[in-house]
Order: sequence, then structure tokens, then C-alpha cells
Amino acid sequence: MEQLLFWCDLIGIVVFAFSGVLAAGHKQMDLFGAVVLACVTATGGGTLRDMILNVPVFWLQDTHYLWLASATGVVSFYLIRYLQVPMRLLKIADAMGLAVFVVIGTQKVLGLGHSAAIAIVMGVMTGTFGGLIRDLLAGDIPLLLRREIYATAALSGAAALVLLDASGTLPGEIVVAIAILVTLSIRLAALRWNLSAPIARFGNHG
Amino acid sequence: MEQLLFWCDLIGIVVFAFSGVLAAGHKQMDLFGAVVLACVTATGGGTLRDMILNVPVFWLQDTHYLWLASATGVVSFYLIRYLQVPMRLLKIADAMGLAVFVVIGTQKVLGLGHSAAIAIVMGVMTGTFGGLIRDLLAGDIPLLLRREIYATAALSGAAALVLLDASGTLPGEIVVAIAILVTLSIRLAALRWNLSAPIARFGNHG
Amino acid sequence: MEQLLFWCDLIGIVVFAFSGVLAAGHKQMDLFGAVVLACVTATGGGTLRDMILNVPVFWLQDTHYLWLASATGVVSFYLIRYLQVPMRLLKIADAMGLAVFVVIGTQKVLGLGHSAAIAIVMGVMTGTFGGLIRDLLAGDIPLLLRREIYATAALSGAAALVLLDASGTLPGEIVVAIAILVTLSIRLAALRWNLSAPIARFGNHG
Repeated sequence: MEQLLFWCDLIGIVVFAFSGVLAAGHKQMDLFGAVVLACVTATGGGTLRDMILNVPVFWLQDTHYLWLASATGVVSFYLIRYLQVPMRLLKIADAMGLAVFVVIGTQKVLGLGHSAAIAIVMGVMTGTFGGLIRDLLAGDIPLLLRREIYATAALSGAAALVLLDASGTLPGEIVVAIAILVTLSIRLAALRWNLSAPIARFGNHG
Repeated sequence: MEQLLFWCDLIGIVVFAFSGVLAAGHKQMDLFGAVVLACVTATGGGTLRDMILNVPVFWLQDTHYLWLASATGVVSFYLIRYLQVPMRLLKIADAMGLAVFVVIGTQKVLGLGHSAAIAIVMGVMTGTFGGLIRDLLAGDIPLLLRREIYATAALSGAAALVLLDASGTLPGEIVVAIAILVTLSIRLAALRWNLSAPIARFGNHG
Repeated sequence: MEQLLFWCDLIGIVVFAFSGVLAAGHKQMDLFGAVVLACVTATGGGTLRDMILNVPVFWLQDTHYLWLASATGVVSFYLIRYLQVPMRLLKIADAMGLAVFVVIGTQKVLGLGHSAAIAIVMGVMTGTFGGLIRDLLAGDIPLLLRREIYATAALSGAAALVLLDASGTLPGEIVVAIAILVTLSIRLAALRWNLSAPIARFGNHG
């Protein structure tokens, strides 16, 4: 289980850092701006989670996360010069990061003994906050707030983890894997078929 | 007093969550995006206050705040379909949330034994930060930074509370009520008559 | 050394607060909006640093920082009416704040016993975050993310401090002074000659 979460964490760092560089590429930022955006995207969600929970921030404890995010940033910076990279790739990398970080965040908060409601909220925050800062800093409308089943996918994955964990019938690794797949498949399905949840509307459509 | 602050807190959560859904409606976000924006607006100010003061974040201690913000978000989402909702309603809901949260924030920080200056700063932060994030996320110019006597109203209410509290002549409940009314009436008067404070200008008007 | 850092801190507060008022002037904000922006710009970086490190936030410990930032805000607000103030002045004030805060932040984190990597990251964060919020709130593209050797200058100064500190051959005051000059001269040179680091590009230049 430790092992599984560790690898998921690394994957989340890498794909979110990559999505940060893609966003930097769309705005033609320079190398160090891109690396900063990569690091912020990769670590933002977990940083806010740990600050709110008042536990030590994860990358202060283990510097490998920062090295991995920076290295991914530098490599991606040169890599994207040899790629045709549409906006869709940014959304897919973001979806993978979202899926693993929502589930890791929810799992970590459950493990600290918090209630299911808090675990779900903190899980959604862990998964969505890094991408939210990325979009804010790059001057884009946050993916989180577009009509693309983003918050819905995160909520579903966190809720799946909490429910399966409470039922106690499946081993922890399977529960984590299912919750990641739930988030990822809802989000990718929404991207593939342009699904959307009900939209906020005023009476005068104003 | 406890009772009064408790009810003010609930009112603040509800009106700020409502203002978040109104902002989501202007951007035609989907249901879960709107609920996220409602929760962030309702809890953002108090969350930052508690993180800076290094005390436990209020909604980790008592989950009712999150349930209330989420429920208000969902109900408002469907409610606004039956309403003609101009931007002005968002500003009025925001003014009510501002007034109660500035005063609650200032009161809480005074109660923790901080100086009057810190209490005023943290009170203004508690009242304004949720709306600030709402406006940033929705891609609007923050109300806080427009020429509409917003920061001024918040500062006045926090200062009124600190001064009346220090004079010690009135009972706590009355002091809180006066400070809320000071903030609310300054802000609503500014909205009603388009008042503004002095504007920052360069010598070359550039 | 204490003395030197203390004065650098005050200079950083003043120039960043001034840059906040300049940004407020460009958006024609009102007096209190400008003072809020001045305070946020001046204290934002150190606040985030202290929150992440879980040490007491510096301006809670010593209220003089807030008074200085507010007073600078008010004075600057009226001062800029008698000046022709181009965008370039904002960037120069920002560069001075960046240089002293990167170095103070790095120094403080080294002093708390953290590793060189963490000290550099936190130093860059201390120096850049206040200006980042200023630009976000004012609706500008953050200086940090433009092609102007901004993150590069901050990284260089933090790295210079860490390296010279580790070599241990120079007195602390000289090390701090050199690191500040490194950051400032790289940043000012970039502004003067429009230097830029390599730019992120896609294969299809999309």
C-alpha cells in the first residue's frame, strides 16, 4: 500500500509538472518561469492540504518531490519543442494528476483520523488546487470552473474511496486503484464526449 | 454573545455561499463548480485567518460549516433559475457577508489576546478574502479593489469594534451589532449612491 | 548581521509597498484599496514562507512591519500625484524588493537548519510571492512569468547566498550583500537590455 501510494505520488508530480510546462508553453514563458509553474502545479495541492491540516508540508520532509518536479520541468521544457502539443494533452495530463492526487489526498486525511466529509473535501482540494493555481497564473479560465465535469470527477473519486474504505470488503490497494480509475474515467469521458453537468442559469438568462 | 456570534457566522456562510453561486451563474459554471465556488467564498476568509494565526481551521473542528455552505450552494444553484438576478444582488449578499465576517474575525482575534492593530488587519482579511478569491476565480475584477468603498467599510467596522470594545462601556452584543451595522451601512450607502474614496492617480494621469 | 538584515527587511517592505501603490495607480484604485495592495505586496512573500515553515508569521510578532507598509502605502498614494510614473519605476522598485527578500528568505530558512535546496526554494518564494499576488490582484500578467529573467535572477541570488555561505570564507554581511547585488544586477540588466532566457515553444509553434 505504502509502495502503491508512493508511486502514484511520483506519477502525479510528473504529470502535473508536465501540464505546468504545457501551460507555460501556451504563454511562451521562459525556462525558469516554466520550471516555477511546473513546481507550483505539482506541489500546490498537497501544500495547501498540509498547511490546512497543520501537518509538516510534504516537500519540506522529503526534498525528492522538488527535484522531481524541477527535473520534469526542465526536461519537458525542451521536450515540447519536438512535439505537436494541443491543449488536449494538457487536459489529459491534468486528468491523470487530478485522479492520483484526489485519491492520495483523501487517503492521507482518512489516515490522520479525520471524518469522511473532511477527507473528501481535502482530497478534492489536493487534486484540484495545483491545476487551479496553474490556470490562474497562466491567465486561463480554471479547468476546475469550466463546464467539463471536473469537480464532479474529483468528488466521485474521493467519495468512492471513502465508501469502499468504510465497507471494508476490499484490500486497500484495490480500493485506491478503483477510486483512481473512477476519477480518471469520468474526467476522460467528459473530455471525449464533451459531457457536462447542469449549468447555473438565471431566470432572465442574464 | 456566543449565541450571537454563532448566528452571525451562519448568516455569513449562507450569504457568501449564495454570492459564490451568483458569480458562478454569471460565468455559467456547472453544479459542482458552483458548489466549490460557494464553499471557497464562504470559508476562504476564516481559513486564511486561522492558518495565519496557527489555530485549528474552523471547519475542520466543526463540519457543519461545510455542510451549510454546500447545501446553500446546491439550493441557490436551482433557486437562481426562478429569479431575475442582477449583479447588484451579488454585491448586497457580499456586503452582508463582509459585515458579519469582518466583525467576527476581529472579535475572534481580540479574544486570542492579539493587539488591536492585528485584530483589525485579521478582521479585514477574514471579511474580504473569501470574496476576493471568488472574484479572482470567476475572472472578475475583485470588488475589494474597485472604487466602491469596500476596504474602507471593512476597516471602519473593525476599527469601530476595537474602539467600542476598548472603551468598555457597552455590552459585547451591542458592540458587535453596532460594528456590523457600521460596515454594512457604509458599504450599502456606497453602492446606493456610487460613493468612492480618493482615487490613485499619477502626475501625468498615465 | 542582525542589523543588516533588519534594515534590508525595512527597505524590502517600503519598496514593495510602493510598487503595490504604483500597480493600484495603474488601475486607479481608491486609497484603501491601494493600502491593502501595498500591505499584501510587502508582506505576502514572508507570510507564505512562515506559514509553510510553520513558524509564527513575522508581522504577528512585530506589528511595525504592518505600520511601515500601511504608512508607505498612504504616503505613496499622495506622492504619485506629483510624479510622472512609468511602468518602469514599478519594475525597478519590484527588483529591489525581490533582491532583498530573496536573500532574507534564504538566510532565514538556512538559519532554521533546513537544507540548501529548501532554503533556495523558500528564498525564491519569499522574494517573488508578494509581487505575484500584486500582479494577480491588479489583473496584470505576473512579472514572475514574463520573459524577463525574473525567476532566474531570484534563483541566482538564492544560490549565490547558499554557495558563499557553505564555502565559509567570507563574513556573513559580505555574503548577504553580494547575494543581494547578484539578484539586483541580473534583474536590472535584464530590464535595461531586454534580456530573456530561452522561451518555451511547441514543435508546431502553436
